[in-house]
Amino acid sequence: MVNDITLLSRIALILVRPKIPENIGAAARIAWNMGIDRLILVRDSLPEREPMARMATHKAAHLIDNLEIYPSLPEALTNFTVVIGTTARRGRQRFVAQTPRQMVEALLPQLANNQAALLFGPEDTGLTNDDLKYCQMTSAIPTADFSSLNLAQAVAIHCYELHHGIIHASKDMTPVPQLASSFELESMYSLLEKSLFAIDFMGKVSHTYWMSNIRNFFSRMRLTSKDANIIRGVSKKFLLQQKNPKA
Amino acid sequence: MVNDITLLSRIALILVRPKIPENIGAAARIAWNMGIDRLILVRDSLPEREPMARMATHKAAHLIDNLEIYPSLPEALTNFTVVIGTTARRGRQRFVAQTPRQMVEALLPQLANNQAALLFGPEDTGLTNDDLKYCQMTSAIPTADFSSLNLAQAVAIHCYELHHGIIHASKDMTPVPQLASSFELESMYSLLEKSLFAIDFMGKVSHTYWMSNIRNFFSRMRLTSKDANIIRGVSKKFLLQQKNPKA
Repeated sequence: MVNDITLLSRIALILVRPKIPENIGAAARIAWNMGIDRLILVRDSLPEREPMARMATHKAAHLIDNLEIYPSLPEALTNFTVVIGTTARRGRQRFVAQTPRQMVEALLPQLANNQAALLFGPEDTGLTNDDLKYCQMTSAIPTADFSSLNLAQAVAIHCYELHHGIIHASKDMTPVPQLASSFELESMYSLLEKSLFAIDFMGKVSHTYWMSNIRNFFSRMRLTSKDANIIRGVSKKFLLQQKNPKA
Repeated sequence: MVNDITLLSRIALILVRPKIPENIGAAARIAWNMGIDRLILVRDSLPEREPMARMATHKAAHLIDNLEIYPSLPEALTNFTVVIGTTARRGRQRFVAQTPRQMVEALLPQLANNQAALLFGPEDTGLTNDDLKYCQMTSAIPTADFSSLNLAQAVAIHCYELHHGIIHASKDMTPVPQLASSFELESMYSLLEKSLFAIDFMGKVSHTYWMSNIRNFFSRMRLTSKDANIIRGVSKKFLLQQKNPKA
């Protein structure tokens, strides 16, 4: 039987280019409060330790000691099969954001066989469209006037919903199988992109538009490794055949 | 009809003897984010303005300008008819604490005709038993190991639950967009099948196996008309290019 603690251990928080070390510490503290113990930074360098440790308090000091740091988001995501972006924007984005509660409900059955990453953007700008393209789901905290939240508080609300959802989850969910990793997906998208160029389906200008549409629908579909392999296989076979036409 | 905004305007946050001005500012910001616009301090003196205003951001500056301050809790509570204490402690206290979600559910029907105050204690010790005696309800955020939260994050989680509860008391759910018709899907599958034959991805024997895999994953995905059109477009373009290769 998969228990609550095990499910929480399948979740990591990823802070993407956070500016203020205090916020990293506050994120560590609330993660620890809620039973989540993996904190990852996408950042060029390790931030100053003292303000992080002060906000984390000694109880969450081990999260600061064990901080993982990656220079880019794709590198941080390599082994995750479920990637969720948090955003304040509800206007132009491609994905219809769910509320944190809806997101947790959708996430729970996937945790049995998957590693999930929850992404938070920088304090001032949030996640970019480029960051969001790696996400299969987005979560936006409902606010008055579509206003944006303090980073540490947005992290707190999401950790709270995760903990609450997992503790109160019904034990008879149907688990979702292991999904394709971010690494497998990116390799698939890259082959698809080449194939679509090869048939002139899209040009230099329109390719961002089409690729984001394509990412959008594959994201909703939750591809397994097998699915991604089929699509890679088709694309490879096609590209090979382009080089050496039959007749 | 009493609407959402009216209900939120019936709620005030009271910070009891807060020590750190930044936390007051962060509370103001999240209160404003969630549509609550009354912030009260129980404190001997007004805290330094700059750190409060910085954390509040200019959007919630009016909450800092309009801070109400009282030397004692009973004075602050004079006009409230519903008083709720927040606490991390689950042991010795007189009241059995509810979760924030249960508390909001119990609070909602009371808001139509009452003014409610939500109390938060000092950063280090929380509300005392003496403070709690003014409360008709207590709310405790469930955590791993009964650990205590950062004040600004505890305020955030409560404001979020209040806003969420009030907004969803009436309305619900994001509507699903119109999905692709069976006609659109079959036309898409037929073009896909032709394309996959054309690149020898599957043969006469294996095609049932592959097509059922492909149908399986597109079914899970709930394609819209637009999605199906993109896939049809790609397949058509590919088949056309097969007939008239560039080189």
